[in-house]
Amino acid sequence: MSELTRFQAKEIQQTEAEMVRFIREQTNDQTLQESMLYSINAGGKRIRPLLLLATIASFKKEISLGGYQTAAALEMIHTYSLIHDDLPAMDNDDLRRGKPTNHKIFGEAMAILAGDGLLTTAFELLSMAEIEPTEKVLLLQLLAKASGTHGMVAGQAADMQAEGKQVSIEDLMAIHQRKTGALIRFAMVAGGILANQSEATLTQLDQVAKHLGLAFQIRDDLLDVLSTTEVLGKETNRDEFLEKSTYPGLLGVAGAKQALLDELTAAETILNELASFPTFDARLLKEVCGLFYL
Amino acid sequence: MSELTRFQAKEIQQTEAEMVRFIREQTNDQTLQESMLYSINAGGKRIRPLLLLATIASFKKEISLGGYQTAAALEMIHTYSLIHDDLPAMDNDDLRRGKPTNHKIFGEAMAILAGDGLLTTAFELLSMAEIEPTEKVLLLQLLAKASGTHGMVAGQAADMQAEGKQVSIEDLMAIHQRKTGALIRFAMVAGGILANQSEATLTQLDQVAKHLGLAFQIRDDLLDVLSTTEVLGKETNRDEFLEKSTYPGLLGVAGAKQALLDELTAAETILNELASFPTFDARLLKEVCGLFYL
Repeated sequence: MSELTRFQAKEIQQTEAEMVRFIREQTNDQTLQESMLYSINAGGKRIRPLLLLATIASFKKEISLGGYQTAAALEMIHTYSLIHDDLPAMDNDDLRRGKPTNHKIFGEAMAILAGDGLLTTAFELLSMAEIEPTEKVLLLQLLAKASGTHGMVAGQAADMQAEGKQVSIEDLMAIHQRKTGALIRFAMVAGGILANQSEATLTQLDQVAKHLGLAFQIRDDLLDVLSTTEVLGKETNRDEFLEKSTYPGLLGVAGAKQALLDELTAAETILNELASFPTFDARLLKEVCGLFYL
Repeated sequence: MSELTRFQAKEIQQTEAEMVRFIREQTNDQTLQESMLYSINAGGKRIRPLLLLATIASFKKEISLGGYQTAAALEMIHTYSLIHDDLPAMDNDDLRRGKPTNHKIFGEAMAILAGDGLLTTAFELLSMAEIEPTEKVLLLQLLAKASGTHGMVAGQAADMQAEGKQVSIEDLMAIHQRKTGALIRFAMVAGGILANQSEATLTQLDQVAKHLGLAFQIRDDLLDVLSTTEVLGKETNRDEFLEKSTYPGLLGVAGAKQALLDELTAAETILNELASFPTFDARLLKEVCGLFYL
């Protein structure tokens, strides 16, 4: 068992337990709770909590309850965004993580509310987390910024509006920096904040995450072309169907594969720089980078 | 000009300016920004910011920037909830405040995102507000609780599920306590917190708001039956159309009118108790109560 596998088994389980506990405690409508838990329990790679918690651990710090709570809030935000993105008015997806999407089970209205509920509950959980007030306010600001109207929501709006249009590689990157990049950057920066790191170190972590965010999206686009519904647990060739611009579309499959390698190499280079300090052990995060290769 | 009219003209304008300024600064997608501002600028009674700011002023305190920011965040949450409630999958309303609803202008997908954007931006604004961190964390917790899955979102879920069913007056009150009551209670309690009041006083404010919240809903139900689309700026007889249980439906029009009077009398009685302290002037909030009469 690799160090990463051990880490994931223990730490992601804790994060999932925190999400489920909080939703059970804080939701007083039965169907709403079921709808929220359905999507939370649908699994997924939990890449954002993993990056957040692995960053804390890479600084050789114990993960506190506040760390799990921040990771749980982050994954709730990600999950709400999937529920809303899958809605008929948005990407109209029927399948997610090998299961029917939320609105296929609970109906559109409840899916909208489950998304609203998870988004609000994420801020509730983080605002109640076991973190000192000044640090907590900073994390709340960064999470809102990353998931809001200059982050994820803006990226989704831009993505939607780009459907059916030919966009440049720069525009495509600007969309994904917001749509998926912002939350991934929050994950690593928040990990650094919870590990009490300096501004300079937080900037380096942000740079690693920026490369990983792009790698993540390039890989996702490549899998949409190269993989099957069976393997992915969601419909493939959706980008073509939705007339979305993609990295393989703009760069070709070989070009996109090279871009993926370039982003991962850039991320690993910064991790090596960070590892020149004895306070930082790059091994775990490098293993996480390994997940992003095709 | 009554004191309330003067107060509204000055303080609500400040709140609106704060909402518009923040949305303009913090939204980096043009259409998304337009969609959010469309609903923010559609007007409305601004009853929640009014209650919050009038509560601060009733304790003879200056309203600080943090007060306006909290009021602005609160109104953003309310506005997002209207956008999502009006969606075809929810109440399917075409008209709101005398104008086409958000999705009629911007389409369903953008309306969902505008709602998500306003919800997130509300927490962003409050997390960045000029308020001391411990107090800010408390306000964030209370706002999330009021607007989330044991507050407004749960109330909306319960309301939807009650459509077409006969519910008791107790069930109806439990729906509205969450759907509309929770944010109105937040308004007055937050006002009390920003005016540095004791736990005991906050409890009294919460009780006033609880009665006002019910009065608000009873009045809304009565207007749906008694008024016209022209006067209300939204379609009437929607409750009957959607097979929603209402106060006039359960108590008759006369019974609902009496219930409205009872709630307002109860609110005013507690305001009089508060006014036995020289630190509290009940006149402005009593004028606000006056807005709730038919």
